[in-house]
Amino acid sequence: MKKFNFKINNEDGSARLGTISTNRGNILTPAFMPVGTAATVKAMMPESVRSTGAEIILSNTYHLMLRPTAERIFQLGGLHKFMNWDRPILTDSGGFQVMSLSKLRKITEDGVTFKSHVDGSKHYLSPERSIEIQKLLGSDIVMCFDECTPYPTTKVEAETSMSMSMRWAKRSRDAFGDRPEHALFGIQQGSTFRDLREKSAEKLSEIGFDGYAIGGLAVGEGQEKMFKVLDYAPNQLPQDKPRYLMGVGKPDDIIGAVQRGVDMFDCVLPSRSGRTGQGLTRFGAINLRNSRHKDDERPLDPFCKCPTCQNYSRAYLHHTIKIGEIIGSMLLTWHNLHYYQELMADIRKAIRENEFSKFVDDFNKLRMIGDVEEL
Amino acid sequence: MKKFNFKINNEDGSARLGTISTNRGNILTPAFMPVGTAATVKAMMPESVRSTGAEIILSNTYHLMLRPTAERIFQLGGLHKFMNWDRPILTDSGGFQVMSLSKLRKITEDGVTFKSHVDGSKHYLSPERSIEIQKLLGSDIVMCFDECTPYPTTKVEAETSMSMSMRWAKRSRDAFGDRPEHALFGIQQGSTFRDLREKSAEKLSEIGFDGYAIGGLAVGEGQEKMFKVLDYAPNQLPQDKPRYLMGVGKPDDIIGAVQRGVDMFDCVLPSRSGRTGQGLTRFGAINLRNSRHKDDERPLDPFCKCPTCQNYSRAYLHHTIKIGEIIGSMLLTWHNLHYYQELMADIRKAIRENEFSKFVDDFNKLRMIGDVEEL
Repeated sequence: MKKFNFKINNEDGSARLGTISTNRGNILTPAFMPVGTAATVKAMMPESVRSTGAEIILSNTYHLMLRPTAERIFQLGGLHKFMNWDRPILTDSGGFQVMSLSKLRKITEDGVTFKSHVDGSKHYLSPERSIEIQKLLGSDIVMCFDECTPYPTTKVEAETSMSMSMRWAKRSRDAFGDRPEHALFGIQQGSTFRDLREKSAEKLSEIGFDGYAIGGLAVGEGQEKMFKVLDYAPNQLPQDKPRYLMGVGKPDDIIGAVQRGVDMFDCVLPSRSGRTGQGLTRFGAINLRNSRHKDDERPLDPFCKCPTCQNYSRAYLHHTIKIGEIIGSMLLTWHNLHYYQELMADIRKAIRENEFSKFVDDFNKLRMIGDVEEL
Repeated sequence: MKKFNFKINNEDGSARLGTISTNRGNILTPAFMPVGTAATVKAMMPESVRSTGAEIILSNTYHLMLRPTAERIFQLGGLHKFMNWDRPILTDSGGFQVMSLSKLRKITEDGVTFKSHVDGSKHYLSPERSIEIQKLLGSDIVMCFDECTPYPTTKVEAETSMSMSMRWAKRSRDAFGDRPEHALFGIQQGSTFRDLREKSAEKLSEIGFDGYAIGGLAVGEGQEKMFKVLDYAPNQLPQDKPRYLMGVGKPDDIIGAVQRGVDMFDCVLPSRSGRTGQGLTRFGAINLRNSRHKDDERPLDPFCKCPTCQNYSRAYLHHTIKIGEIIGSMLLTWHNLHYYQELMADIRKAIRENEFSKFVDDFNKLRMIGDVEEL
């Protein structure tokens, strides 16, 4: 059994190049984790996800506890075997989805009672239960159970919420116990208030975690406010541990966050937008539903090496997306995940070569070429 | 350019082992053609279709003429390039779908005017137009435009309909012209009337085709009546050309038809039933939606070598099908197409070894083990 470990290989400004070692393989950082909510990265075979370069995926405590249940997955040999993905899996704690998806929540110091968004059945999550579920799943990187503070909020509310999350972080740590081949990440809260973020970071460091997430962002505050928080938040967290910005984001969000010292990301954007007909490229997004693609024999991105761009025209993508054929979702998801992994590889290369600011300039210039829909 | 050709390698009773040579590759017969209605075998990448052993797929004139249109596919380099399938494609003529899918048909000696099932727009198909469309698509095996006689029908109606289809067959032949590297198949009609089937076969042989389909079956008459027709129909057709039973069928339909001298088949069953949660095995069909699979760690078919059975449990298939995840459709379609191709390979092996009747006996015994849902 290999111990969880993080090593920083280079720094370029605040941007960090690193390697996370886990018992199920290494993850080069900055890393993007495709989202496999319900034990599948939607519309993708796991070997196809791997072929895009993904080294870790994220899965969801909330969805899996409802269906098929954590106990069932445990009985079946754990989440990796269940979904045929033998590399690392990070699971979120369910805290965010309880707030965003479930109905009729009742939050107490002890935990959260809520009704399933699927069938209205009653469920309960607490730090202890969330950790238990993530252990049953066999998650390699376990997240603390926290309350994702809504945005906007008053400072008083933000502090009350953050303080409870910090008490829950301690309970999560205690429930997790000593499992050196697995990791437990704390989650910083404090909304957009610098001193609350500082307090939260101090509390988490005091408890001690294998990695630290920045929570409560990408919840509607916009990129400008998010970057303002990221100007200080990552540096409040321990330097020698991975930093994970939850639920982010668009390519320029990721680049701005890497520039500010973040190492890990997850987002449904590439897979969800693929299913709705958006192709993401270095030049911007292309809406394949638009009828101007119906005669276009060019690939989605002529520079891209993914199977979609190697073998299919925009006309074919338009045709299959337009009539709702599953292969349209498959091909666009594949391309988008490939694009994200290629972006991360380019980011890592730039940091390795101490050319990250040039990379950011070039990235922004490409975007300035204009609305890609006009290309 | 290689000429279209059919060679019989062995005969075992009425069952025939053959090789169809085309400009895009060989097809061993008896052959099953997966259905790629709208330029995609639903929920499958074409390389996955190929990996099941499929050597030819079927696509649909009716669907493609409506969307994205045959002219557009031609402009984009033809159907093979459009859908990334470089092996043979057989296209049906649209005759069947005009009857089964479109609205407000008006049939005259000249052709059929109909309204699209998609948007109600008005379209026209005739022997000449159907052949033109199939040429634009670049189809390797082109089907004559015919009227699929409804079932049940009177003998007078069956004869009137068959006679028009034979005149249309002649017009299809004339419109097709001389294209030795492509094939044109005639379609026998005559409903369940032996003398009409005989007349139809004579007329088609007189015109001369590269292969002969048996049409107007599998339209609700049931297996018993279908086999009764197949007891004589294949032998009414030329011995030295491939015989294709359109739209058939279930594994036991196929086996019974091979036993009666049929060489080619197509059916939506394996792909459609995969998308609705049915897994097809040599023991029968398994409904993965059934909650009795939720804890079942066994593969769908422990004898099967397909990626689904190699890597996933029935519990996972149940979970993903139940919640509507695309991968459930992908995995079950893959398995079902693999099963069909394996069945055809077993059929061919049995004919090669002159053991086809033993194969049929064994097949029926396996089915007699009982309702597979009880296994």
